[in-house]
Amino acid sequence: MALSRIVHLIRADANITVVAGDAAVHPEIAKLNAEGHIYRLLERNYVSSDLQMYEKALVNFQYEHLENSSKHYAEIQHQVDNEIFACVCCCIDDYELSTQIYYQSKYLRLPVNIADKPPMCDFYFGSMFNQDALQIMISTNGKLPRLSKLIKDQIARQFEGKDLNKAVENLGLIRERLRKLVVVDEDLISIDTRMSWIKKLTDFFDVDQWSRLSLTTEKVDKCIISCFPDFPTNDYEEFKRMVLE
Amino acid sequence: MALSRIVHLIRADANITVVAGDAAVHPEIAKLNAEGHIYRLLERNYVSSDLQMYEKALVNFQYEHLENSSKHYAEIQHQVDNEIFACVCCCIDDYELSTQIYYQSKYLRLPVNIADKPPMCDFYFGSMFNQDALQIMISTNGKLPRLSKLIKDQIARQFEGKDLNKAVENLGLIRERLRKLVVVDEDLISIDTRMSWIKKLTDFFDVDQWSRLSLTTEKVDKCIISCFPDFPTNDYEEFKRMVLE
Repeated sequence: MALSRIVHLIRADANITVVAGDAAVHPEIAKLNAEGHIYRLLERNYVSSDLQMYEKALVNFQYEHLENSSKHYAEIQHQVDNEIFACVCCCIDDYELSTQIYYQSKYLRLPVNIADKPPMCDFYFGSMFNQDALQIMISTNGKLPRLSKLIKDQIARQFEGKDLNKAVENLGLIRERLRKLVVVDEDLISIDTRMSWIKKLTDFFDVDQWSRLSLTTEKVDKCIISCFPDFPTNDYEEFKRMVLE
Repeated sequence: MALSRIVHLIRADANITVVAGDAAVHPEIAKLNAEGHIYRLLERNYVSSDLQMYEKALVNFQYEHLENSSKHYAEIQHQVDNEIFACVCCCIDDYELSTQIYYQSKYLRLPVNIADKPPMCDFYFGSMFNQDALQIMISTNGKLPRLSKLIKDQIARQFEGKDLNKAVENLGLIRERLRKLVVVDEDLISIDTRMSWIKKLTDFFDVDQWSRLSLTTEKVDKCIISCFPDFPTNDYEEFKRMVLE
């Protein structure tokens, strides 16, 4: 379980400190460490001061003075980026120690996840699907992990091999050209009309269909000019002919 | 935007404190407040002390003494549940003030989301799909909100009217009966065999197909006894006949 957490965190580009205990380290964790994916691997048991191991000192100012002080802002940012754990994940088979770690984390206001103890979790690791810029997280708040997994696999099959960024690019181009061509003069109703138009058009087709088009400025302009404020056809093949030929 | 945040938080059963500013409150927010969905609506501008408005005092003990003290645990739990904001959402059109609120939140170690400023967000509101016990969050780390929306709609269409809990119930029953019928004596290899079997069987069909079955203990037992450690057919119609007739 610790290994699966570590793999998740590596994917999220985290700097990971692992307190592995004094028994033999899991070979996969040792391997990830050897490959440089782990910031620091400590092969010893947890001690109370571990949750503050990187904290140099309390930031040296009063909360009230935080108004408009970029000097203080920089100090806080440094502390947040370099000294404070962004989150704590605990995967041990010791109820008393994991309870202690939970309350130490809460005292220090660190977001914490105690494995297999849903009430002691500020966040959950659901099933996660990643592709291009997209992240889909499926969660049942820790209640039905098998359903999460099943749905994740189904979503993965559905987007496999699809160029999701292309869908975004096409929709972005339509939006950009619409803004250019349908000028509004601070007139809220027109902005609204333009926004509803693009929303409704987006819903005509699914992600896969949008990803399979290669729109050009010229064709998009032609389509907007000939249709707006009415809509082009919502028949995909017909729409494709209109914007591609 | 504040309204959409509030609606999200209401769905998550949050106790919401809204500092609405001194201009007229959005009618929908006023309505949600009148209906009792908002814990506290303050119709005035933000002041620095707002982020600690419910904190009574610093918890009165030393961090080092936190080991094995359930009295201190109760104090921390009370503070976490009743005095500290679980998260801060800021939707204002004032760069200086929102920067200040960001750093005040970080100083107090409160998770914070400054709307439209992705680098000043500890968490994002992606597109969220909710059905039964299931939550699916679609995120592009704030980069491509339209793609998130499109994918959310597609997922929603796909699960519309499906009884997801039924799928879980069916898979849970198979797992339960398998545990009952295939007894293992602390033998790790057998536990593994049992786990791989249910995993592989789960993947035979999709969520929709699992949700359309109404399995009974008797039929599941018959299927396990006649197949395990081999598998039943992965043809859905044939499997249906096997477990339903």
